[in-house]
Amino acid sequence: MAASSRVLSLSPTAATFRQASSGPTSSSIPQNTHFVVTVPRRTRNIQSSVHLLPGSLPVGIATKFGLQRQTMISGRSARRTGGGAQAALITPDGGALVDLIVPEKDRPAKRQEAGELPAVTLKAIDLEWVHVLSEGWASPLTGFMRQAQYLQTLHFNAIRSEDGQIFNQSVPIVLAIDDEQKGAIGESKAVALKDPQGELVAILRNPEIYKHNKEERIARTWGCTAPGLPYVDEHIAPSGNWLLGGDLEVLQKVKYNDGLDHYRLSPAELRAEFERRQADAVFAFQLRNPVHNGHALLMTDTRQRLLDMGFKNPVLLLHPLGGWVKADDVPLDTRMKQHDKVLEEGVLDPATTVVAIFPSPMLYAGPTEVQWHAKARINAGADFYIVGRDPAGMGHPTEDRDLYDADHGKMVLSMAPGLERLNILPFRVAAYDKSVGKMAFFDPSRKEDFLFISGTKMRGFAKSGELPPQGFMCPGGWQVLVDYYQAKAKETVAA
Amino acid sequence: MAASSRVLSLSPTAATFRQASSGPTSSSIPQNTHFVVTVPRRTRNIQSSVHLLPGSLPVGIATKFGLQRQTMISGRSARRTGGGAQAALITPDGGALVDLIVPEKDRPAKRQEAGELPAVTLKAIDLEWVHVLSEGWASPLTGFMRQAQYLQTLHFNAIRSEDGQIFNQSVPIVLAIDDEQKGAIGESKAVALKDPQGELVAILRNPEIYKHNKEERIARTWGCTAPGLPYVDEHIAPSGNWLLGGDLEVLQKVKYNDGLDHYRLSPAELRAEFERRQADAVFAFQLRNPVHNGHALLMTDTRQRLLDMGFKNPVLLLHPLGGWVKADDVPLDTRMKQHDKVLEEGVLDPATTVVAIFPSPMLYAGPTEVQWHAKARINAGADFYIVGRDPAGMGHPTEDRDLYDADHGKMVLSMAPGLERLNILPFRVAAYDKSVGKMAFFDPSRKEDFLFISGTKMRGFAKSGELPPQGFMCPGGWQVLVDYYQAKAKETVAA
Repeated sequence: MAASSRVLSLSPTAATFRQASSGPTSSSIPQNTHFVVTVPRRTRNIQSSVHLLPGSLPVGIATKFGLQRQTMISGRSARRTGGGAQAALITPDGGALVDLIVPEKDRPAKRQEAGELPAVTLKAIDLEWVHVLSEGWASPLTGFMRQAQYLQTLHFNAIRSEDGQIFNQSVPIVLAIDDEQKGAIGESKAVALKDPQGELVAILRNPEIYKHNKEERIARTWGCTAPGLPYVDEHIAPSGNWLLGGDLEVLQKVKYNDGLDHYRLSPAELRAEFERRQADAVFAFQLRNPVHNGHALLMTDTRQRLLDMGFKNPVLLLHPLGGWVKADDVPLDTRMKQHDKVLEEGVLDPATTVVAIFPSPMLYAGPTEVQWHAKARINAGADFYIVGRDPAGMGHPTEDRDLYDADHGKMVLSMAPGLERLNILPFRVAAYDKSVGKMAFFDPSRKEDFLFISGTKMRGFAKSGELPPQGFMCPGGWQVLVDYYQAKAKETVAA
Repeated sequence: MAASSRVLSLSPTAATFRQASSGPTSSSIPQNTHFVVTVPRRTRNIQSSVHLLPGSLPVGIATKFGLQRQTMISGRSARRTGGGAQAALITPDGGALVDLIVPEKDRPAKRQEAGELPAVTLKAIDLEWVHVLSEGWASPLTGFMRQAQYLQTLHFNAIRSEDGQIFNQSVPIVLAIDDEQKGAIGESKAVALKDPQGELVAILRNPEIYKHNKEERIARTWGCTAPGLPYVDEHIAPSGNWLLGGDLEVLQKVKYNDGLDHYRLSPAELRAEFERRQADAVFAFQLRNPVHNGHALLMTDTRQRLLDMGFKNPVLLLHPLGGWVKADDVPLDTRMKQHDKVLEEGVLDPATTVVAIFPSPMLYAGPTEVQWHAKARINAGADFYIVGRDPAGMGHPTEDRDLYDADHGKMVLSMAPGLERLNILPFRVAAYDKSVGKMAFFDPSRKEDFLFISGTKMRGFAKSGELPPQGFMCPGGWQVLVDYYQAKAKETVAA
């Protein structure tokens, strides 16, 4: 189908890249080079006046290393005076980012009103979705889905807005309630949502309560109803038999106070950061694993190819998923420490990389979920999305095979309604090339030279304290993993 | 959501109908009146010259009763000279009807070529899908789905064509093959498809073989994977682990030689018939059950409302599904005999009704399948589609509840991508009104007056020879059912 023409190949011989190539031919981007920091390329089209950042906005890794302060240029003015390939950031779905957070001055009145309303206590997973909705990751959704939105999500992976526009929405964002909660809401026109500690989180307006057919939701979202789907077992199976839809007014930005909140940039904050860096292309990399040098190779290579296409300042959004994950995934704090090391040690260039946390929970729903991962990044300003083999996939819960075909995620993503504006960049496979002693793109013609280091193998190295092959991961990043797995092993022994 | 605005209410007080009303106020349409035949309404805008039909084209009930021959007007010329509300039939998906049947003159060469090709023997169900594809019911599909089309169907219920248009396609139309058949095809660029008797049916060009993940197909199509889904148990579970996609060249019109082929009008034949009748609105009624007077009331009422909206000659497509159905459904030949009686006895007006067989198999896939039923009727020229409660639904195979929410079919249909051009007419509930002794629209304010006669209750009457309440069904139609159920009961006793 024609839709696949939107998939840009990362192969160096791909015609799409060749034809578009008009940029600098510089090959000075560090590839697997440690401890080297480069500044962003400048071109004659971009005014190179350097400004300091105006203030206190959290900018993830940027504030941590203070590098961007020297290299940042004022986006807006440069754009106006510059020419060539300069373009504004991609428009959010629905035209404007949804922001459901009540302005501070209005909060006392809302709190007072909420005291009179029937209340629903949110589970931790619900709070993560409130976070997602409140900042506009799911723009133009303005609250938990009503039935018409839910049905469109299940059947079409896309929702038609009132003005007839189609936007992608592949996973239901719903709030389950039980019979008792339904009874308590009754005919009320608003509901107070509280966190597990009883603090007011939000007011939900014009509630719509409809049946939660769990079997159908699971079947249509995962393409599988076997027991053992992590999100299903933990969050859907024990949840109520009703769904509560309605518009949200969120009383304050959702925080976790886990020392990582400064990484939790909203889509608006990310957009401000990309503009500040004068990005003319933003490429997002979704992950929930440590970054090894194969990933880094892919990301630096992507930037080079975007430069070759004529973009002047492609910026990487390194965007680890930070919501709920299954128990055997590497925990978020460990991953963030590891990512810090990768930038600190120069494997990725801090000047052209923004590290932030994507607050969504993880569904492990393969081709359905990868659309959500991509769509949310459009709202955060990304116009290029790197998609790997078997994105959001896992082993089948009851059969000895992968749950999803490894190629389906990429195919479905490239054809998905509402994602036509996004450029899909398929992931090239990198492996450890024994002939040169570093991670390199896999070359099937000399496959005996390559060593694939699986997650299981990596964990085995880290637990035993054995070093992986040199060049697999930067030493500081590796040490973070060793520390984590060895501490975990001690806990297990002690327990 | 805005999409629901496309749902036209059939309530007499509905604003949409009121506003559009400009037609004749005649109330001479027969409602539950037996043995009365009326001729189509004429208006001053339509040239009333009467022509005989040119020839031998099968026109379903038309040829059976010979009525249209007197009342038919030449569509094209009348349209050109007439004015007012006249409009061409709705355009098929993709702009032109697909016709995969090889012209007679080219068949000898194709047969010769096919003799050299690897061959796949079709099952009866596959042959029904070849029939569906060959006549363009699934336009613009030109053969069994390739993987990109299949994935779009499963995930989006819609396919993007090469020119970027979206057309609805909610159920996979695929050909399953096993390992041995896959091996036999090898690298061949074409495959001969044969019927179970070994006769050549079609040549499939540019084959694409991909994995048949049955669990995922079932989960995403039915929203359920429990054992006991009729189509799944009978046709998917025993089928091969690969799907064979490719373009079809069909050697001749698929026939069944069951005495009903004259009812199997292709979309092109139906369109010709609607034009011949000078229809300016075509409303389709999908069914797989006998027509009782409640159905008839709905259909005559719909026609009246379309007249009230300003249409001059709305034509009903009474379109029983004629492909595979589960064993306890009323068989097609009995249903067709029953439908004949309904027209013969004037419960429906033969002059404004076309009876034909929809050749698709039945999936019992609820909200997913109703889209297919509607989309196929666009290709046959219908621009209005009547949708009932729980369309294509059934009881849950393992739980004591309906598989689908009774309202979801209508909601999903009204929001479905690619069906924006179709006017959705929700089914009003009719029941036996004891106060007047006939079928009438249910009035909840005096619900004690109404008797709901379920399929089970109807079968009970027919088996025992007991008469249903007078006015439930025309006598001739009822006798067809009595004959069927009593013969069946005797068979069961004899066996």
